[in-house]
Amino acid sequence: MAAEKPGATQLGKQVGIPDSPETAQLDRVANPHADTDYVARFTAPEFTSLCPVTGQPDFAHLVIDYVPGAWLLESKSLKLYLASFRNHGAFHEDCTVAIGKRIASLIEPKFLRIGGYWYPRGGIPIDVFWQTGTLPKDVWLPDQGVQPYRGRG
Amino acid sequence: MAAEKPGATQLGKQVGIPDSPETAQLDRVANPHADTDYVARFTAPEFTSLCPVTGQPDFAHLVIDYVPGAWLLESKSLKLYLASFRNHGAFHEDCTVAIGKRIASLIEPKFLRIGGYWYPRGGIPIDVFWQTGTLPKDVWLPDQGVQPYRGRG
Amino acid sequence: MAAEKPGATQLGKQVGIPDSPETAQLDRVANPHADTDYVARFTAPEFTSLCPVTGQPDFAHLVIDYVPGAWLLESKSLKLYLASFRNHGAFHEDCTVAIGKRIASLIEPKFLRIGGYWYPRGGIPIDVFWQTGTLPKDVWLPDQGVQPYRGRG
Amino acid sequence: MAAEKPGATQLGKQVGIPDSPETAQLDRVANPHADTDYVARFTAPEFTSLCPVTGQPDFAHLVIDYVPGAWLLESKSLKLYLASFRNHGAFHEDCTVAIGKRIASLIEPKFLRIGGYWYPRGGIPIDVFWQTGTLPKDVWLPDQGVQPYRGRG
Amino acid sequence: MAAEKPGATQLGKQVGIPDSPETAQLDRVANPHADTDYVARFTAPEFTSLCPVTGQPDFAHLVIDYVPGAWLLESKSLKLYLASFRNHGAFHEDCTVAIGKRIASLIEPKFLRIGGYWYPRGGIPIDVFWQTGTLPKDVWLPDQGVQPYRGRG
Amino acid sequence: MAAEKPGATQLGKQVGIPDSPETAQLDRVANPHADTDYVARFTAPEFTSLCPVTGQPDFAHLVIDYVPGAWLLESKSLKLYLASFRNHGAFHEDCTVAIGKRIASLIEPKFLRIGGYWYPRGGIPIDVFWQTGTLPKDVWLPDQGVQPYRGRG
Amino acid sequence: MAAEKPGATQLGKQVGIPDSPETAQLDRVANPHADTDYVARFTAPEFTSLCPVTGQPDFAHLVIDYVPGAWLLESKSLKLYLASFRNHGAFHEDCTVAIGKRIASLIEPKFLRIGGYWYPRGGIPIDVFWQTGTLPKDVWLPDQGVQPYRGRG
Amino acid sequence: MAAEKPGATQLGKQVGIPDSPETAQLDRVANPHADTDYVARFTAPEFTSLCPVTGQPDFAHLVIDYVPGAWLLESKSLKLYLASFRNHGAFHEDCTVAIGKRIASLIEPKFLRIGGYWYPRGGIPIDVFWQTGTLPKDVWLPDQGVQPYRGRG
Amino acid sequence: MAAEKPGATQLGKQVGIPDSPETAQLDRVANPHADTDYVARFTAPEFTSLCPVTGQPDFAHLVIDYVPGAWLLESKSLKLYLASFRNHGAFHEDCTVAIGKRIASLIEPKFLRIGGYWYPRGGIPIDVFWQTGTLPKDVWLPDQGVQPYRGRG
Amino acid sequence: MAAEKPGATQLGKQVGIPDSPETAQLDRVANPHADTDYVARFTAPEFTSLCPVTGQPDFAHLVIDYVPGAWLLESKSLKLYLASFRNHGAFHEDCTVAIGKRIASLIEPKFLRIGGYWYPRGGIPIDVFWQTGTLPKDVWLPDQGVQPYRGRG
Ligand SMILES: [Ca+2]
Ligand SMILES: [Ca+2]
Ligand SMILES: [Ca+2]
Ligand SMILES: [Ca+2]
Ligand SMILES: [Ca+2]
Ligand SMILES: [Ca+2]
Ligand SMILES: [Ca+2]
Ligand SMILES: [Ca+2]
Ligand SMILES: [Ca+2]
Ligand SMILES: [Ca+2]
Ligand SMILES: [Ca+2]
Ligand SMILES: [Ca+2]
Ligand SMILES: [Ca+2]
Ligand SMILES: [Ca+2]
Ligand SMILES: [Ca+2]
Ligand SMILES: [Ca+2]
Repeated sequence: MAAEKPGATQLGKQVGIPDSPETAQLDRVANPHADTDYVARFTAPEFTSLCPVTGQPDFAHLVIDYVPGAWLLESKSLKLYLASFRNHGAFHEDCTVAIGKRIASLIEPKFLRIGGYWYPRGGIPIDVFWQTGTLPKDVWLPDQGVQPYRGRG
Repeated sequence: MAAEKPGATQLGKQVGIPDSPETAQLDRVANPHADTDYVARFTAPEFTSLCPVTGQPDFAHLVIDYVPGAWLLESKSLKLYLASFRNHGAFHEDCTVAIGKRIASLIEPKFLRIGGYWYPRGGIPIDVFWQTGTLPKDVWLPDQGVQPYRGRG
Repeated sequence: MAAEKPGATQLGKQVGIPDSPETAQLDRVANPHADTDYVARFTAPEFTSLCPVTGQPDFAHLVIDYVPGAWLLESKSLKLYLASFRNHGAFHEDCTVAIGKRIASLIEPKFLRIGGYWYPRGGIPIDVFWQTGTLPKDVWLPDQGVQPYRGRG
Repeated sequence: MAAEKPGATQLGKQVGIPDSPETAQLDRVANPHADTDYVARFTAPEFTSLCPVTGQPDFAHLVIDYVPGAWLLESKSLKLYLASFRNHGAFHEDCTVAIGKRIASLIEPKFLRIGGYWYPRGGIPIDVFWQTGTLPKDVWLPDQGVQPYRGRG
Repeated sequence: MAAEKPGATQLGKQVGIPDSPETAQLDRVANPHADTDYVARFTAPEFTSLCPVTGQPDFAHLVIDYVPGAWLLESKSLKLYLASFRNHGAFHEDCTVAIGKRIASLIEPKFLRIGGYWYPRGGIPIDVFWQTGTLPKDVWLPDQGVQPYRGRG
Repeated sequence: MAAEKPGATQLGKQVGIPDSPETAQLDRVANPHADTDYVARFTAPEFTSLCPVTGQPDFAHLVIDYVPGAWLLESKSLKLYLASFRNHGAFHEDCTVAIGKRIASLIEPKFLRIGGYWYPRGGIPIDVFWQTGTLPKDVWLPDQGVQPYRGRG
Repeated sequence: MAAEKPGATQLGKQVGIPDSPETAQLDRVANPHADTDYVARFTAPEFTSLCPVTGQPDFAHLVIDYVPGAWLLESKSLKLYLASFRNHGAFHEDCTVAIGKRIASLIEPKFLRIGGYWYPRGGIPIDVFWQTGTLPKDVWLPDQGVQPYRGRG
Repeated sequence: MAAEKPGATQLGKQVGIPDSPETAQLDRVANPHADTDYVARFTAPEFTSLCPVTGQPDFAHLVIDYVPGAWLLESKSLKLYLASFRNHGAFHEDCTVAIGKRIASLIEPKFLRIGGYWYPRGGIPIDVFWQTGTLPKDVWLPDQGVQPYRGRG
Repeated sequence: MAAEKPGATQLGKQVGIPDSPETAQLDRVANPHADTDYVARFTAPEFTSLCPVTGQPDFAHLVIDYVPGAWLLESKSLKLYLASFRNHGAFHEDCTVAIGKRIASLIEPKFLRIGGYWYPRGGIPIDVFWQTGTLPKDVWLPDQGVQPYRGRG
Repeated sequence: MAAEKPGATQLGKQVGIPDSPETAQLDRVANPHADTDYVARFTAPEFTSLCPVTGQPDFAHLVIDYVPGAWLLESKSLKLYLASFRNHGAFHEDCTVAIGKRIASLIEPKFLRIGGYWYPRGGIPIDVFWQTGTLPKDVWLPDQGVQPYRGRG
């Protein structure tokens, strides 16, 4: 069980899928090691949104790494926030970066990066990689290690 | 669905395979995060051209990474541009670098690189790796992670 | 070098890509072990055709197993025959089975099977598996072992 | 491009996600090799439904194998039918078998099987395997080859 | 979300880890496709018990396959039942078979098998494979596909 | 057999699982190459604790790298210390960092890092990466190479 | 912890490596499920013997599967028995089969098989596969799944 | 060290590469378990011959399985026999089957099979699978498990 | 088809295997992007030479990366040059570096490196890694990614 | 065949396993490219020693990388030196570093590193990584790429 503590206003309640990213509430909780630089990684292989042009479903595997400052990202609210894209139109490049920015704006991390690995459309998948700036000195941040797309064979 | 917006002049139309790379139209669209440095990756495992010496088909797996400036590469036009090599003669080294240069010249990225992973001929495949220059500071660019050629066993 | 002997009428000549499967010439050569049941497998990861509806390129990885009777399939003519689909419209299910039938009709094998592993379209790839009938007794035929499609992550 | 021909009433039209599996239209097209026993496999790694108890999203990777009789399953309508579960409640075991039965009832195949590989809930994923009966003699049906769930490490 | 319906007496309540397998309550729910033979697989990589000789922790990866009759195994109660071994002594061979028998005795399946893949002790891991009898005709049961132990290198 | 020497006060005795991390005794032994900078890595795929909110079991795969100073970490006491979390509540981020700090405080290494790779909860696993500071110059520290979480398919 | 119970005469004592396979004592313990057919698998990747011709070390990865009758193979005595080959000359084919026969003669299983996967010598490794006879009806025995030797590349 | 005993006339001597398969001497030695049916497998990833048409080198990965009767195949003579193809012309299908037949004719096994996995030529590798007849009852013969050819990506 | 143009004196002719590396002719062709820094990689898994001490065959997997200056390495002549080692004695370390130096001396690249991954002898394979000097600034050179040797299991 | 030349005093003689590391003779031979910085890697997956506490066998996979100065490490003497640990007690951390130091002291390389990947004991394997100092400028040294320990599942 990940950090779910004071500040986690949706914790312990049954909460439906938010109607849109705008209305989804993303929560933060106090970082128990606020004096220490470390990385927390969330891996979310269950992301789906809609294509703004055709209305058809899109799917992605998302990986979010961050170095917390005063706050940790509350994991249940992250799940609900990601689920809020379910019936929401989003372009691949834009959506991935926007998710990263929304989280960064809430938790004010020392560093954050997001990798979006989208399922292929037209035979050519798009991956998107964004980070907020310079990784603080002496922080260990491994590769995300997501397999590249291969086609068949 | 990747970025397909104003500027995407071929979007929503049924467009045939262009006759040659020269006649193929490659489109760009406005970058929705033009103030932010990030990477977009296109993985194209369905590339084929002709050998200029023998006329026989060649195949490659292409991966293109770039840091957009004002423009994104429009994905449908990329698909058509790559398809335009289908009946076109091209040497491996030359072709890979030329594709990278054509895209870079259109979208004027802050950085671009292309990896061309060609199927073996004569038992010895050729891979080609080109980039435009220095990756901007604090941009995250993972390995392309394409498996090396192994032969058998 | 695979079997390329009398009967291989295109061998040693530079031959262009045939215009269509109908005009492609597929050759057979005498089986040097005609009194013995064994399997020959051709793996062709470089197959491409056109979508009959949209005219866009399709790609497949093909694997053909057969138990030769009097004839072996001549490998260079197979390469040219497969290349003849390059600018030819073909549905996935139909095309895979038709290639198997064309080869079987030429070489009259004791058994033949073909697996067609097509690249994804609309997020859902199609694989096609056909064989001519019963594998002769005491013939060893391993799995084709092609990796299933995974999406991303 | 897979089989999309007469009978494919939604083909070439932009069709929204159906409201529910009940209202989704699944189409069939004539089998071009109706006199031949072979297998067609659809791999759909982009499936999502809702948990009927909690309303939270569930995800699955589905693989459908069938031996067509008079009809092929039309691939675009399959995509729309699977998308219709997006905002629909479904238990894992029930849903997987029901999808198989709905398809079988439409296309009356000589044989059909479906594998549902669900993402973990409570640390313990469920996989579901159903087939209609006996595989016809001399039909070749490879393993689906989906990786088992591993946890971490 | 897996089958959690009437009969699932612990569902929707917060339930602590049972003190022992004997006191753990395992629940069954009605099979929604009781007229159909199919397989449900639970993969539980989070199993731990104690060594009855040394009192030290043991770990295993368990996979349970069954063909339901009138009943499905309720997944939340399975999770609690497996957790009840946490502070309970158990030999590898005995424990794996006993778990299979306990489940089979509750849900009276047409068939059940369990694979227990134990972490190495003394450099030599033990795997245990048990099934109740003959798989019913025309039921599809794929390999469990758990990787064998390799040591290092 | 890893370093188990003077200082290893629990070595050669049968020792039960400690009641809690607080009461667990972690031992150190003299570094036989105290004048040399090198890395020792412990890989512990058998870690389990309890969720402080729900009381349900959590599992993790832990990897600890350190550059010893005067002391080595005694391996049997590490095993007992990790086992002491078995019936102890712990948040993922907090727990991983706290284990690293406890070990570092005992053995006063020149450098230490810990990777915690937690099993998924709510479909989104958390990984935690912490290190004490700067790796000493000319020390070789390979990647931990733990596979990322993939979901299914 | 595997089965270590009455009959395990070496259990709980510190026992040195036996001088030879002949003097090693292999123990059996009562099968707790003697009325049930199941499989126990031991995987021993830490086997080494000497070449009878050159005296140089040989290495193998051994996997032993059996269906117990009245007896289980006691795991600690197996470890010591395998260690007894350490300074003992043994040909690959002979040694693998002889280990299988020695175990079978002690525990009188309903079925036993052994796979010996030897490290390469002269570029050509030898694998040896032996079983005692027919697997009892309705016993589940998965593949051993050891990777084949590949050479390099 | 594999079986190298009386009958192994080349053992212990430095022997050059034979000029041709015809002049290579293949040796057999007495089977130490002649009353027992088991399998011995030789994996030879270091095979090379010449193309009879172009004179260019060909490479293959060979795997030979057999059930010995009175004789074992002597491993050093096998190595020399395979090396004798180094400057010898051979077609893929013919060569693979001929090697199997030559060995079978010498050692008169109860069963033998050979898999030849050839490196790609013209983008399409050939694999050849031959066996002598029916595997004796109750002999265990695992898959050869050689990876299929994939091309790139 | 790789670069085969003026300068490729052996192109289009049937050329036998050269007698020795000394007599093999290695060709260069003009670099079509001589004003651009990029990498070309040749992967040659079909390399074999002879042991200078025993005369027995050795095998290696070679990977050559270079940044061309005025010249590209002509691929057909590379194939013939590598084939010229077929009946030539060569030590592993010496041979790998010498091949790199010969190529570098001909094509005068801005940078070149060669990895030689040799098949095991005496259970211990040798890999050799050489490069000419400093990689030019802003050139992208991925890992060669050749799998390490594992032994068995 | 690796470098075996003058200085290789044990070459061509049949030499038994040395009694201990102290009595084992490790040989060096002249570096044929002494004016060139390159890396030679030895991979030794067949290492075994004894636990100094319990006398039971330990196993490790060792990888040694070095940049030769005037000398190469003679490979046959390395094999014998490693075999000399067979009946010798050694702690994991100490043993790995000591092997590296012994080799470095003999061949006086410009750089050397050793990775020791030990088989698990008590469920927690130890890996050890040591290097002599700074890698010389412009020397290419790839990762050792040994798989991390995973437990099961
Ligand atoms: Ca890395
Ligand atoms: Ca990397
Ligand atoms: Ca190989
Ligand atoms: Ca198989
Ligand atoms: Ca199979
Ligand atoms: Ca695990
Ligand atoms: Ca199977
Ligand atoms: Ca191993
Ligand atoms: Ca690395
Ligand atoms: Ca997936
Ligand atoms: Ca199997
Ligand atoms: Ca099998
Ligand atoms: Ca491919
Ligand atoms: Ca890299
Ligand atoms: Ca590789
Ligand atoms: Ca690296």
